Amino acid sequence: MILIKDVRLLECDGNWDILVEGNRIKRIGRNLREKEGIEDRDIEVIDGRNMVAIPGLVNTHTHIPMTLFRGVADDIPLMEWLNNYIWKMESKLNEELVYIGTLLGAIEMIKSGTTTFNDMYFYLDGIVKGVLESGIRAVLSYGMIDLFQEDRREREIKNSEKTVKKIMELDSPRIKAAIGPHAPYTCSRELLTVAHEMAREYSIPIHIHMNETLDEIKMIKEKTGMRPFEYLDSIGFFEGVRVIAAHCVHLSDREIGIMEKRDVVVSHNPISNLKLASGIAPIPKLLERDIPVTLGTDGCGSNNNLNLFEEIKMASLIHKGVSLDPTLVPGEVSFKFATLNGGRALNLEVGVLKEGYLADIVLIDLRKPYLIPVENLKSHLVYAFKGVVDTVLIDGKVVLRDGKMTSIQEHKVYEMAEKAYRKLVD
Amino acid sequence: MILIKDVRLLECDGNWDILVEGNRIKRIGRNLREKEGIEDRDIEVIDGRNMVAIPGLVNTHTHIPMTLFRGVADDIPLMEWLNNYIWKMESKLNEELVYIGTLLGAIEMIKSGTTTFNDMYFYLDGIVKGVLESGIRAVLSYGMIDLFQEDRREREIKNSEKTVKKIMELDSPRIKAAIGPHAPYTCSRELLTVAHEMAREYSIPIHIHMNETLDEIKMIKEKTGMRPFEYLDSIGFFEGVRVIAAHCVHLSDREIGIMEKRDVVVSHNPISNLKLASGIAPIPKLLERDIPVTLGTDGCGSNNNLNLFEEIKMASLIHKGVSLDPTLVPGEVSFKFATLNGGRALNLEVGVLKEGYLADIVLIDLRKPYLIPVENLKSHLVYAFKGVVDTVLIDGKVVLRDGKMTSIQEHKVYEMAEKAYRKLVD
Repeated sequence: MILIKDVRLLECDGNWDILVEGNRIKRIGRNLREKEGIEDRDIEVIDGRNMVAIPGLVNTHTHIPMTLFRGVADDIPLMEWLNNYIWKMESKLNEELVYIGTLLGAIEMIKSGTTTFNDMYFYLDGIVKGVLESGIRAVLSYGMIDLFQEDRREREIKNSEKTVKKIMELDSPRIKAAIGPHAPYTCSRELLTVAHEMAREYSIPIHIHMNETLDEIKMIKEKTGMRPFEYLDSIGFFEGVRVIAAHCVHLSDREIGIMEKRDVVVSHNPISNLKLASGIAPIPKLLERDIPVTLGTDGCGSNNNLNLFEEIKMASLIHKGVSLDPTLVPGEVSFKFATLNGGRALNLEVGVLKEGYLADIVLIDLRKPYLIPVENLKSHLVYAFKGVVDTVLIDGKVVLRDGKMTSIQEHKVYEMAEKAYRKLVD
Repeated sequence: MILIKDVRLLECDGNWDILVEGNRIKRIGRNLREKEGIEDRDIEVIDGRNMVAIPGLVNTHTHIPMTLFRGVADDIPLMEWLNNYIWKMESKLNEELVYIGTLLGAIEMIKSGTTTFNDMYFYLDGIVKGVLESGIRAVLSYGMIDLFQEDRREREIKNSEKTVKKIMELDSPRIKAAIGPHAPYTCSRELLTVAHEMAREYSIPIHIHMNETLDEIKMIKEKTGMRPFEYLDSIGFFEGVRVIAAHCVHLSDREIGIMEKRDVVVSHNPISNLKLASGIAPIPKLLERDIPVTLGTDGCGSNNNLNLFEEIKMASLIHKGVSLDPTLVPGEVSFKFATLNGGRALNLEVGVLKEGYLADIVLIDLRKPYLIPVENLKSHLVYAFKGVVDTVLIDGKVVLRDGKMTSIQEHKVYEMAEKAYRKLVD
């Protein structure tokens, strides 16, 4: 058992204890050692004084191995970025390199308070290996792209099926599978249909890119006569499954109506959308309709980090600024995007500190100039914090302590990542 | 003398030495100890391996004591924020509290790589004391507001004059004075004229808020029949002085023409402008006209931190996103806003690492997951960095070493700040 002693919580005054047993939060209260009659030899005590405990953040849209592409190209148009940099480097990837990129990304996320991520990529064996070793929690999907070619489609379906089965056989409490058809403009109608069937068959979520750019919407419209959400709705894509739709930057009112009716979950990626000049998602409109919004960083090629606290701040800032309304998306709300809503979206008992829930807990040292005065802590975490955390538990295990990874040797990963980068660019 | 050994620089390959003598950079080169024939006993050596050295950042618009107001109110309209929170707390301020807020702000800035700030506030004796003790560099102005009342005007002019004289008498290499008429909507024409005369007389810059909100522009237009920059130009406000205009969110083409002709320097505050829902400044348009742009955080009431690296990232992101053009304000350019342009704006030999320039140097430890692969360093500093620095020299003196302040005891300042906060809210 682990006892976090005398820690502050966001919603309550004073200091509290959190007792963790196995991979779950057993009790939250005061003086738990005495109340629960726990012997010293049975527990590891973490001193929570001068700390605040928050639920680990949930990043609902990533391509984790892209950490290796950090900074290779910025400030250029999307197609130039893809053609001249990203696709060239991706063609050189293999399982080993993807594994290294995953380890690097897991360290970065854990150190910035993210304990769960929802990923779409390829070479999934490498990602699974990195997730298992690092101690992070993940929902993983193989990103299917058939470009409307039948032979590619069959291969992609096979890869996706293999991934799902492998993850299910692993039976790890920390890894769940999802189905990842890349996007309506890269996947045929047949592939989208199969993806939907697979998600229903295995009762797992779908993770898909939706309405990221004006170009792709135009493409779909020319092909199908419909906007992307209308098109997917017309083929029954949302029926009986949880769909996590990343980006959702450009939406018609009719599409928003479909999202509301079909319980679509949005992964809002404000920083990536700004950097690639895709635009600004109409989040306030979605909130009016009670459409659940979560947050994602996207991959490190277009952000260029995995610090979800930046997305929280951006989600609260950007909509105020473009609408000239300072009351839009209050800090309270954007913080919920990254915690409670993320957990719910992925059907995981994470994103809130609650007895019986999974023990994914982040401790933040409050003795930082940007967190002082130590009042209005939720405001500080949204508007002032940098995303540098002290201690992290995931699935009841300590993976970060005093700012240092306990599960893996950081410097070795950094060295491996440098070598991996050279292989990708040379 | 201080020798920074084997450090990386942004513009050059390999490792370099930086030799600091007195308060200036004496040499930048390789193997300087041998080349310059320096004896060991004469130098303090700083190991720069695994570090990059950059010029200290220049924050051109702050109200530093407002660190004490961090997080008191967010997500509400400007006038409610001012009336119900900020002005109430400001009325309780005194020299001692302002001094404490200044120390807290100086620590926050130094730890995030800012070595110079351009401030406008009141109780200047408290600010001067905090700046002297902390080791940071500052350009300070007393913020004059007469609200069109003659008696207030006289008092404000006296306070401003007293401040300028005191700073000049101090003759500190780290503190310069500026003249700070608050804004055209809070200062009478008479006050603006006196401010201009004072700036000319003392040959120091003017620091002023300009065109932050649509409301204030409307107010000026009703009063004078002109937009703010036209009005100021009509009274000769820009003649023969350097004017640093903070915000500049809403500008007509004619106003941009005046700014170009009168060599006005812009302090772009993108985060504050988003948070208070003021809007988004037309920076790409200003760049087309070669109007110099610098960056400011504004006060901690509206940001809520002093981390200028966030402004650098935001300055590169926001204009891409709203214009749907990913090539706008490249990272290279926003980084220059916060360094070279800031130094030039304040007429200080800072903002660039150059022999003969002031030794305001920041070392950043590269062994962080978000800076790996350690390539494309400038991109990382703009798009991936969190603003956590390792070592800082200001005016040739080490003020931060291994992440810890050497000039002041951090924990004491934090305790003082907590007590100060209680005095302001109770």
